[in-house]
Amino acid sequence: MAYQPSTFNAYLNENRDRFLAEFAEFIGQPSVAADGRGMLEMADLVARRFRELGAEVTLSDTNGGPPVVYAEIGPAGAERTLMIYNHYDVQPEDPLDLWETPPFEMVIKDGKIFGRGTSDDKGELLSRIQAVEAWLKTQGELPVRIKWVVEGEEEISSVNLHDWSARHADMLGADGLLWEGAGYDEAGRPNFGLGCKGIAFFELRCQGPSHDLHSSFAPFVTNPAWRLVWALSTLKDQDETITIDGYLDHVAPLTADEWAAIDALPMEFEAMRERWGISGWLTGADDFHARRRYISEPTITISGIHAGYTGEGSKTVLPAEAMVKLDFRLVPDLTPELAQDLLRQHLDRRGFTDISITLLGGEAPAKSPLGSLVERAAVAASQDAWQKTPVMFPWFAGSGPMHSLSTRLGIPGIFAGATWHPNARAHSPNENIYVEDYFRSMQFMGAFLDRFASLPAEVIDSA
Amino acid sequence: MAYQPSTFNAYLNENRDRFLAEFAEFIGQPSVAADGRGMLEMADLVARRFRELGAEVTLSDTNGGPPVVYAEIGPAGAERTLMIYNHYDVQPEDPLDLWETPPFEMVIKDGKIFGRGTSDDKGELLSRIQAVEAWLKTQGELPVRIKWVVEGEEEISSVNLHDWSARHADMLGADGLLWEGAGYDEAGRPNFGLGCKGIAFFELRCQGPSHDLHSSFAPFVTNPAWRLVWALSTLKDQDETITIDGYLDHVAPLTADEWAAIDALPMEFEAMRERWGISGWLTGADDFHARRRYISEPTITISGIHAGYTGEGSKTVLPAEAMVKLDFRLVPDLTPELAQDLLRQHLDRRGFTDISITLLGGEAPAKSPLGSLVERAAVAASQDAWQKTPVMFPWFAGSGPMHSLSTRLGIPGIFAGATWHPNARAHSPNENIYVEDYFRSMQFMGAFLDRFASLPAEVIDSA
Repeated sequence: MAYQPSTFNAYLNENRDRFLAEFAEFIGQPSVAADGRGMLEMADLVARRFRELGAEVTLSDTNGGPPVVYAEIGPAGAERTLMIYNHYDVQPEDPLDLWETPPFEMVIKDGKIFGRGTSDDKGELLSRIQAVEAWLKTQGELPVRIKWVVEGEEEISSVNLHDWSARHADMLGADGLLWEGAGYDEAGRPNFGLGCKGIAFFELRCQGPSHDLHSSFAPFVTNPAWRLVWALSTLKDQDETITIDGYLDHVAPLTADEWAAIDALPMEFEAMRERWGISGWLTGADDFHARRRYISEPTITISGIHAGYTGEGSKTVLPAEAMVKLDFRLVPDLTPELAQDLLRQHLDRRGFTDISITLLGGEAPAKSPLGSLVERAAVAASQDAWQKTPVMFPWFAGSGPMHSLSTRLGIPGIFAGATWHPNARAHSPNENIYVEDYFRSMQFMGAFLDRFASLPAEVIDSA
Repeated sequence: MAYQPSTFNAYLNENRDRFLAEFAEFIGQPSVAADGRGMLEMADLVARRFRELGAEVTLSDTNGGPPVVYAEIGPAGAERTLMIYNHYDVQPEDPLDLWETPPFEMVIKDGKIFGRGTSDDKGELLSRIQAVEAWLKTQGELPVRIKWVVEGEEEISSVNLHDWSARHADMLGADGLLWEGAGYDEAGRPNFGLGCKGIAFFELRCQGPSHDLHSSFAPFVTNPAWRLVWALSTLKDQDETITIDGYLDHVAPLTADEWAAIDALPMEFEAMRERWGISGWLTGADDFHARRRYISEPTITISGIHAGYTGEGSKTVLPAEAMVKLDFRLVPDLTPELAQDLLRQHLDRRGFTDISITLLGGEAPAKSPLGSLVERAAVAASQDAWQKTPVMFPWFAGSGPMHSLSTRLGIPGIFAGATWHPNARAHSPNENIYVEDYFRSMQFMGAFLDRFASLPAEVIDSA
């Protein structure tokens, strides 16, 4: 029986209030992976919602971290299997004083839904679940077998997913992988992507005296903050070139097709400059080169640094300890392990053996082939549900654990679907999505299930 | 008539209870410059005590801050004039719960006097006043004219003293300046000093995007934390040499006598290493060179640094702002203004015009010539009153406002006298001094007045 969007959409309308009430429950449950708040409660909430669909659900162990909520649903004998990935954890809510509404409370205002996790990633997770409900209630049996992986550590670099997916590789076979969506851009175009950069998130620490000292002792007592500043200054030079010994040798050159795909990407640079209150790009790059750098370049970002007294006014101390958090974005063929090894060797070679390195989370870059079934199904579903052709990124500048579930398992993956808009403030105060985008996400999901089940497996060469 | 310590000391004994009762009144009057509590009441109490000696007293305006209590006493036609500096303000008493006795109440226990201000600086101030009373009652007329400056803002960086001393330079002429004492060291030796380092405390800030961004934008958006790290790394190199353009040109070389005075200083390096949990000194210096560096070197200390996310775990942000607090200790001939100008020029020359500099507090270094009358009088008085030869620092590694009343006015100054001991807990809960040190401070003062009045003005070359 062919997919009937009219009955599907009617069901969404009829259940609009309940769907929003369920979303309020998801937002209202804090699930901050960084400090562990509410993780088990949230996993349980997600599992319960899956069970309401009739799914087989497991809270699957992750070496003691928040569990993976793993759900299977749909005919066991279906011709195709779709893997779906989402996550139920959110970023910390600080700085709290910049929120205009309570972070863990759904507030609807001016057509937007506010609350931590609305855009990243509870809105998409729940709207996809609700879409499956709508399919079951209006279309009958699902057209595919779904294997749904919902992890609880995405915001802390999916520290256990890689190991989890290795341990469960046998059960994870699929014909395609639907990843999180990447939202709409400034022009309202859905942005899809065939992969993403990897990441290695490090914490570096240097220890000085056992407690903060009066700064008059500075002429002869080591200051760990200076040690850290000097070490950092050797990692990247002021023209933004990474200077870790041997690091750039591992960056694979891009093909002409890849450059062409990048150059074709529409990016609203002018709007970004305005929104961020800045007049130009790093190293004075023009928009053309900013785009190329954005997609193609590995980075080292100081995401946080701290030492000593940082309150009001002055306090004349020599700090006991200094700490920096470094976010490395990895392009092929860099890996977290390689980044860690090269960083350690680089620092040791320069005498910084007193600086410790802890890898807080790492993911290798992910890259899927052009023309796969998931890509074609996602493009068609976008046209079906939204009458829009998505912008297709060869890979995204952001990171995710896609590698563990796609590249490594040989399953083509795609970031597709969309709930968030350019001012959704993911990771920031006042995170939000549009109410209508929430329901449009369900419409995309319905069309995607249909297309993924029915499109030919291989591209037919029209030449 | 020669000074008669026996009658002087007998007077101290006879008036012991009253002197302690007066001290109880001083301690009982809160005078917290940080929040303004009791400042005028305390100024009035000090003024009243000076008037009881027959002094001419003025409460002198300081741009609206707590007044300077300025007192003159002694024969107008005296051959020599002595300036004395003390302060009547104290540090805040918090954390209150760590006090074992009420902070603003004198409690005598185990031979110690407890209470806020006992060691810093009410004990010394009042014991010096009581010593002048004892002189007047037992020796007759004072042998010198005394100009006594008692400020109320020492604990908040003497924010108005520099300006006050400039406005009153005409009346402040003197042959020597007796500063606060620096107390006894671990071995019971009184530590005197002929000056102190200056200080310039800066806050540097760099602004990036208007709010923290997702770190995936790092390839083309300026990160203010990197800007600050690079800027800092140009200020001092890894062998601890300050590399601000032209900065070290302003550091006056030391004389052989000054090096000799430094090398003679007893310092308990082994105890410091143990207390601070470190195995060696900066750049691998031995104790000999650590001592030299301690006294002779200007420093730039990172006292605090902050940007982005510094909580537990990882947060993939590109921070909106970065901040560092820098404590510059200044040796002659550096000044806060010079440090600020050279720092600004240095950063501008390297393109760091995006980094702002705010001077949060500054004091120029103070240095008095070796062999001055105040030095010889203080050494002799220490021997007279205590039978101890003081440890003489050519200048201290710490900072204070001595410059405003000494170097700038051409008056040789000295940190001399002693009320506090190594566990006196100045600035901390349970501040205390020994009862006997309180009275010994009076004996020192009597001897000092005698020696300052009677020693030859110049050192007689014995060669």
